[in-house]
Amino acid sequence: MEHNISKHISGRFNEELENVRNHVLSMGGLVEQQLNLALEAIAENDADKARKVSETDYRVNAMEVQIDEECTRIIAKRQPAASDLRLVVAIAKTIADLERIGDEAERIGKVALDSFTKDQQDLLVNLENMGRQVSKMLHDVLDSFARMDARRAFEVHKEDVKIDREYEALTRQIMTYMMEDPRSIPKIMDLIWSVRSLERIGDRCQNIAEYVIYFVNGKDIRHTSQEDIEKSL
Amino acid sequence: MEHNISKHISGRFNEELENVRNHVLSMGGLVEQQLNLALEAIAENDADKARKVSETDYRVNAMEVQIDEECTRIIAKRQPAASDLRLVVAIAKTIADLERIGDEAERIGKVALDSFTKDQQDLLVNLENMGRQVSKMLHDVLDSFARMDARRAFEVHKEDVKIDREYEALTRQIMTYMMEDPRSIPKIMDLIWSVRSLERIGDRCQNIAEYVIYFVNGKDIRHTSQEDIEKSL
Repeated sequence: MEHNISKHISGRFNEELENVRNHVLSMGGLVEQQLNLALEAIAENDADKARKVSETDYRVNAMEVQIDEECTRIIAKRQPAASDLRLVVAIAKTIADLERIGDEAERIGKVALDSFTKDQQDLLVNLENMGRQVSKMLHDVLDSFARMDARRAFEVHKEDVKIDREYEALTRQIMTYMMEDPRSIPKIMDLIWSVRSLERIGDRCQNIAEYVIYFVNGKDIRHTSQEDIEKSL
Repeated sequence: MEHNISKHISGRFNEELENVRNHVLSMGGLVEQQLNLALEAIAENDADKARKVSETDYRVNAMEVQIDEECTRIIAKRQPAASDLRLVVAIAKTIADLERIGDEAERIGKVALDSFTKDQQDLLVNLENMGRQVSKMLHDVLDSFARMDARRAFEVHKEDVKIDREYEALTRQIMTYMMEDPRSIPKIMDLIWSVRSLERIGDRCQNIAEYVIYFVNGKDIRHTSQEDIEKSL
């Protein structure tokens, strides 16, 4: 009888953990959608889409608060240990980064509210390219989270170097443009902020990859070199 | 007898909570010191000080990882509930923001590695002014954390509007400067990044204020208007 009860409790506990995991995946899906909509807004110079990103951000925020509450409730009620606790911790950290990625998407979308000359379109095309890479990185890290696949998470972790290189190159290109056409500076600064936002999203994807590896390996690998991470896998 | 044991256990638990709280205050002190050193480096154009900030950042990172482990250990071993659990959650979130403030301080310090013309010194002076305000905000929010004083935390929360206004004004001023002297753009961009970093530190101080209010009130007030926060106090 007691065994049954404990099985029952643990069954419900697993259900709760499964629910909260699913909520994170929904939140991740929404944030991915927000980033892609912001990039579309820029590519199509569509102010309505940019406004839509901005209007939808409250949903991302609400999801973070709700999932955070679920995590605290699970810790208080279920007193999880070992890998269950690591899962809750990894989730609580992941949603904080997802929420900030949502904020960055909103900022990026705002570029679509400006209008650019034919000349400046070249810069936009490069921004879009970088955006696509970052969007893929976000997709891949959410995938590694869904499967709790540390190897896959590590692959994403390594991709961030490429994003950083892209960021350096594009920032240099934009600065050169500003030097050649100083009157364009205020508008072009919005572009630079977007490039920076994309770079930050890359960093946050790297954070999420670290939480997945922490959950699977039981080791906190933040501030650890990639060689050492690889050894630990 | 049983009562004594439970009292003993709870006594040790309180000691552990007290310890972890003290560690957060030490980490906060170090981060404050890093920010102030970075600002001094700029004011005195002292590259050594800037390098010192950069070299010390690993200690901030190490403290975050250590305190994070303490938090997870406390949750697993002590199964805290109610306000104890809220304290642990507030701590875990606070140290994440402190670590990022440390990163921003490192970025800000790098401005001291450039040399500026007499003309550009005016921009630096304004950066230093803004830096002082942000440093005070960090000091005040750490103070509200030390006392777990929600009212004081709310005062800091409201200060961020001023920082944001300062940020807007200074960014506009720097852009005007770049338009007048386009050759200076690459160097001046470093200044703009620093201004942005200061603005971000303001946001993070606001986050920490929200965790203090969450701990005291038991209510998550992120994404809540300041009028509603005030009502809840």
